[in-house]
Amino acid sequence: MPANTFGHTFRLTTFGESHGPAVGGVIDNCPAGMEINMDFIQRELDRRRPGLSKIVSQRKERDRVEFLSGIFEGKTTGAPIGFLVGNENQRPQDYEHLKNIFRPSHADYTWYKKYGIRDFMGGGRPSARETVSRVVGGSVAKLLLMKEKVTVHAYTSQVGEIILKKNYKELDLEKIYDNPVRCPDKTISGKMEKRIMDVRKEGDTIGGIITGVIMNVPAGLGEPVFDKLQADLAKAMMSIPAAKGFDYGMGFDGAGKKGSEVNDMFYLKKNGKVETMHASSLHTKSINLRTKTNYSGGIQGGISNGEDIYFRVAFKPVSTIMKKQKTVNIYGEEVEFSGEGRHDPCVLPRAVAVVEAMGALVIADHLLMQRKS
Amino acid sequence: MPANTFGHTFRLTTFGESHGPAVGGVIDNCPAGMEINMDFIQRELDRRRPGLSKIVSQRKERDRVEFLSGIFEGKTTGAPIGFLVGNENQRPQDYEHLKNIFRPSHADYTWYKKYGIRDFMGGGRPSARETVSRVVGGSVAKLLLMKEKVTVHAYTSQVGEIILKKNYKELDLEKIYDNPVRCPDKTISGKMEKRIMDVRKEGDTIGGIITGVIMNVPAGLGEPVFDKLQADLAKAMMSIPAAKGFDYGMGFDGAGKKGSEVNDMFYLKKNGKVETMHASSLHTKSINLRTKTNYSGGIQGGISNGEDIYFRVAFKPVSTIMKKQKTVNIYGEEVEFSGEGRHDPCVLPRAVAVVEAMGALVIADHLLMQRKS
Amino acid sequence: MPANTFGHTFRLTTFGESHGPAVGGVIDNCPAGMEINMDFIQRELDRRRPGLSKIVSQRKERDRVEFLSGIFEGKTTGAPIGFLVGNENQRPQDYEHLKNIFRPSHADYTWYKKYGIRDFMGGGRPSARETVSRVVGGSVAKLLLMKEKVTVHAYTSQVGEIILKKNYKELDLEKIYDNPVRCPDKTISGKMEKRIMDVRKEGDTIGGIITGVIMNVPAGLGEPVFDKLQADLAKAMMSIPAAKGFDYGMGFDGAGKKGSEVNDMFYLKKNGKVETMHASSLHTKSINLRTKTNYSGGIQGGISNGEDIYFRVAFKPVSTIMKKQKTVNIYGEEVEFSGEGRHDPCVLPRAVAVVEAMGALVIADHLLMQRKS
Amino acid sequence: MPANTFGHTFRLTTFGESHGPAVGGVIDNCPAGMEINMDFIQRELDRRRPGLSKIVSQRKERDRVEFLSGIFEGKTTGAPIGFLVGNENQRPQDYEHLKNIFRPSHADYTWYKKYGIRDFMGGGRPSARETVSRVVGGSVAKLLLMKEKVTVHAYTSQVGEIILKKNYKELDLEKIYDNPVRCPDKTISGKMEKRIMDVRKEGDTIGGIITGVIMNVPAGLGEPVFDKLQADLAKAMMSIPAAKGFDYGMGFDGAGKKGSEVNDMFYLKKNGKVETMHASSLHTKSINLRTKTNYSGGIQGGISNGEDIYFRVAFKPVSTIMKKQKTVNIYGEEVEFSGEGRHDPCVLPRAVAVVEAMGALVIADHLLMQRKS
Repeated sequence: MPANTFGHTFRLTTFGESHGPAVGGVIDNCPAGMEINMDFIQRELDRRRPGLSKIVSQRKERDRVEFLSGIFEGKTTGAPIGFLVGNENQRPQDYEHLKNIFRPSHADYTWYKKYGIRDFMGGGRPSARETVSRVVGGSVAKLLLMKEKVTVHAYTSQVGEIILKKNYKELDLEKIYDNPVRCPDKTISGKMEKRIMDVRKEGDTIGGIITGVIMNVPAGLGEPVFDKLQADLAKAMMSIPAAKGFDYGMGFDGAGKKGSEVNDMFYLKKNGKVETMHASSLHTKSINLRTKTNYSGGIQGGISNGEDIYFRVAFKPVSTIMKKQKTVNIYGEEVEFSGEGRHDPCVLPRAVAVVEAMGALVIADHLLMQRKS
Repeated sequence: MPANTFGHTFRLTTFGESHGPAVGGVIDNCPAGMEINMDFIQRELDRRRPGLSKIVSQRKERDRVEFLSGIFEGKTTGAPIGFLVGNENQRPQDYEHLKNIFRPSHADYTWYKKYGIRDFMGGGRPSARETVSRVVGGSVAKLLLMKEKVTVHAYTSQVGEIILKKNYKELDLEKIYDNPVRCPDKTISGKMEKRIMDVRKEGDTIGGIITGVIMNVPAGLGEPVFDKLQADLAKAMMSIPAAKGFDYGMGFDGAGKKGSEVNDMFYLKKNGKVETMHASSLHTKSINLRTKTNYSGGIQGGISNGEDIYFRVAFKPVSTIMKKQKTVNIYGEEVEFSGEGRHDPCVLPRAVAVVEAMGALVIADHLLMQRKS
Repeated sequence: MPANTFGHTFRLTTFGESHGPAVGGVIDNCPAGMEINMDFIQRELDRRRPGLSKIVSQRKERDRVEFLSGIFEGKTTGAPIGFLVGNENQRPQDYEHLKNIFRPSHADYTWYKKYGIRDFMGGGRPSARETVSRVVGGSVAKLLLMKEKVTVHAYTSQVGEIILKKNYKELDLEKIYDNPVRCPDKTISGKMEKRIMDVRKEGDTIGGIITGVIMNVPAGLGEPVFDKLQADLAKAMMSIPAAKGFDYGMGFDGAGKKGSEVNDMFYLKKNGKVETMHASSLHTKSINLRTKTNYSGGIQGGISNGEDIYFRVAFKPVSTIMKKQKTVNIYGEEVEFSGEGRHDPCVLPRAVAVVEAMGALVIADHLLMQRKS
Repeated sequence: MPANTFGHTFRLTTFGESHGPAVGGVIDNCPAGMEINMDFIQRELDRRRPGLSKIVSQRKERDRVEFLSGIFEGKTTGAPIGFLVGNENQRPQDYEHLKNIFRPSHADYTWYKKYGIRDFMGGGRPSARETVSRVVGGSVAKLLLMKEKVTVHAYTSQVGEIILKKNYKELDLEKIYDNPVRCPDKTISGKMEKRIMDVRKEGDTIGGIITGVIMNVPAGLGEPVFDKLQADLAKAMMSIPAAKGFDYGMGFDGAGKKGSEVNDMFYLKKNGKVETMHASSLHTKSINLRTKTNYSGGIQGGISNGEDIYFRVAFKPVSTIMKKQKTVNIYGEEVEFSGEGRHDPCVLPRAVAVVEAMGALVIADHLLMQRKS
């Protein structure tokens, strides 16, 4: 039911279409007394902004968030945080030619079957424009996580056949946003950028993979059995437009492995004081372990173990291409059409900020849930 | 919060540990007047039963479901359906040697950090035993789906390096349960069985992949934006113990593709009556389209389009191996141990029924949600 | 958790404080294709508007709703409906004298204990200003109910010791908004108005009772056992600021009655076609009954029976009085203060529209829930 | 949707009908490590047990709870607590004469209109038998509250025209269960008992009022704006079979009052250390106030203020009377019938334990919600 609400405790409700006056949302259950750093939030929004480079769509929209409630003298009050981001650059004429057709691999047909309505301008609600609200929600979640020293990073690790082979530990995650493809390896990011430019020239689009890394998550987050941490992460990522796959830790590679190869051995945390424990003192939770390897990806039995959480999200190529395609219109006639207007040849540069936002929302949500017990 | 409840409308709440007297659950919001075929439900339960072959653990437990409410004279009444499945074959001594240690890649440590409690016998709640309740819930969901001719199948498509290359359309899905590995291809299933027997002999375990296929789903199921059909499927699958990855349609392969290669072209459904549509008649939803290809995997914009929904779930190798492993005990001491008792060398043969159950729960849930609009 | 969200299926999420730039909300799961009559919605908002008469506070605020999403060419699209109502007339200086004190019987102290924060201007979120968003949500719910011919009325039936003794059936409910106290009986409303003017002159305030009547609700709405129709109505009404009591049907009077006095006898609905029913045809739901009396208040076993639903909501006198009161400030010192600025001497004239809104939200919510089964 | 689930965080899901093998439920999100006192829980169950005296129905059923999960070595583990209470004394023949009729003021007709099903034996799910599960859930909630010294009491304060005029502070709440009507005043309870015996002889039934008192609730519980503490209490109480009204604090009496009469003046808590507070130290929540009067009933702005929470619940007379009544059967024919079998002449003696249980569930739920912030 709560289709436009995400989260169990730290909850984000969003609204807004690409062609309406604004997108926005409500953040509920954010703890009181938290400082809201507006510069940080604006930076997050800028990171998903198009118009910054040649490889993303040329719209010059500027995303400025306006907070309407829940913040007083720069701090959260415990009341719901309502916010808006205006849609400044609508061009209805860009969508006129799509008014009567069902675009291949878009939501036009399914939306019509579900609601019996054509809301044709820019795809309406299913447009990637709705992810703006996710980034606002995610940026507030990140502010919450900062107090716990939890960091959330994502980067482009594959574009078409260009694959970043380095592990996240071999990369400098502070350099992710140094280039337009959001890949922290300079050589690979250059290749990716060229690949995207090439498909754009062809009037085509291309898919890819984003890798996410969440560090310093305290052990104990995740709710068995249905709200396992990886289950909520998977849902979060698979709700992003164009996402086709999710895995974490050893992921799909684990299918080919033997238990003896991928079990993560525990050892006592360095400098970790161990008190002699009696049966009766088990509640102290005083033992802190680490694992020598991390095939588990920081989650065991649905609960974080304190190691890095890392995961991958696969994205399909954008469905809007500039090449001629055949389809059917609302009168049941076969028609030909080709994309017009401003469209991204690759969703990944923009989606990196969204993956981070969704990751932050999930961890903030589970952090608040765990506090209650 | 509702960590032990799954679903928005068709809801399953489960309880029970491996070593308690029973596992069970409550199915809520199942429509009234639906016939409950007990033989069908028992067959579903048998399909996840161990003890049926050499490749799964040798426990001879028998799973018999007892319904306690919500059914009257063989039909659902609209009241919640409570059910139990007894745990008949508990052997606490099997777990005695684990009492004080944190098993690698198990939930022992994370559970302890979360709850401050050691519930050592058989892993307690995180045990795969809880999936019995999922299969009962899923079987009732399947009965609901049958009335709509929706079918839900899953099968083992990879065990270690043994990969079933055939597409689900090239397979006879009625043969899935003909063999103990739940792979409908006789040659490949034989290889998989041998592979599992081999790792068992080594005292080791092995991972794999299960493919799921859901057919005849009516167009229009799925709730944008956060409860997209693929998002709920991903959460469902990733909540299964040992699952490490999920993708659907072209999945991770889509990352390497161009839009022109994978857009699914629409055509008018054969024998589909098309009425001339005016703007005002758009509510008729009278156009029925199909796609020539199905890279989308039956879902576009988070909503089903009437094509087959297919997906993959990756499973890691079982963490309990019979080989010696080092770990740390609850006193902070390094210790050596090896697995004892009855354990599966590969989780997939058992997990196939669970994947089907979770798939059925998601589709039944979205079917009821869609009916309301 | 979803403290700022109301409803199971037809869901309203609200945000906004009295002194912020705007209040607003998001309506989720409103069916697609529904016409939005803006004049109707504005009329509903006007009905809770202060500044219209001498008996409510003299603020000249104008409440204009702006819809930001979910509506296209005058109809709902199925996407969430975001809306704003600006706060045009903020006067922070009115609250300066309250900055450091805990006002008696207000939320100042409890809010501070809960959130550790003083958000002093106008009471912040707990202000009655938040009910604007309820009225917007309720007006959309009313539009949905109109299609089913369901009507929702409320009126002031008691102010202090002035009691309207007539039953709702003896009143012309179309005249409720003809006078500022929202009481459809001309004589009584005059007395009530005078009573309110008198307490205002004294610098005092006064309580009262609002009666609600919901007609033409189809039989079958309400979800046993915890979401009974009366339980959801009770929660809705008791969530309105200043509400102290709720009863429905015979209500508190039923405590003194015998079963033989208040059982509602069934009879066959006039002109109701009765088909001969076999056991197997029980699913036809073809029998339509009515009751001779309606002590039940239109709900039996938590489910509507097709008769009128009627209920009462008791409101306490407004806590802000112009008389001197003693209290404690945030430094723990005893202080004296008296109310300043614009405040209502009686909450009822304004609350009538809010009671209607909450009633409409509950019935719309249950209507959508019932459709699914 | 979650019609058989109560609570946001501390959640109770129930199932079971009067004539099935058992009723039961699942308690979710109960904190780990809590001792489960079985004697206490059994005592709570006994308190709602019929067959103990002449004034309640003569069935000799014994209610014994069996916990199936979530408890290990006498303590909660954090896993869901499944439980059963067997129905030992079913007499289907008692209901045979009701098979085809719609009993006045019962749920027969509404249930039939909702589900299209007649589940005639003993009223099925809407039977008061389902409240057994509430008492089990409530008793676990009480164990949780005991650790915080919160107490929950309820008692019969009115039966028909017999009214207990004393305030709860004038009563010894430890004596509530000393007599069968659950009224702590010996003189009044005698009169109530006689009144119930008298209506029973007449073949009639009688209504009444139960008063609830919850003490030592910490300030700060309750979630604005829709999940106000009084809103959740109202929903909880109005979900109890036969409840017709709820009020708290000054309640309906407040309708006749002026603000100057009922505002609760604050004073500094005795022996309460007050630290000098600076603006920056407001987060310390270090001031503790009390109120001289308590017209507010312990809740202000939807949040507890630390004073006693007290409320009333009105119950109608039981609908099953032994006198002849006319009604309509499922064939649309007018018929006469009279009640048979074992039925209570007054629901209050049994309902007292249920009111306590629901009150405990609400406070435990809000306690856990508050801990998270």
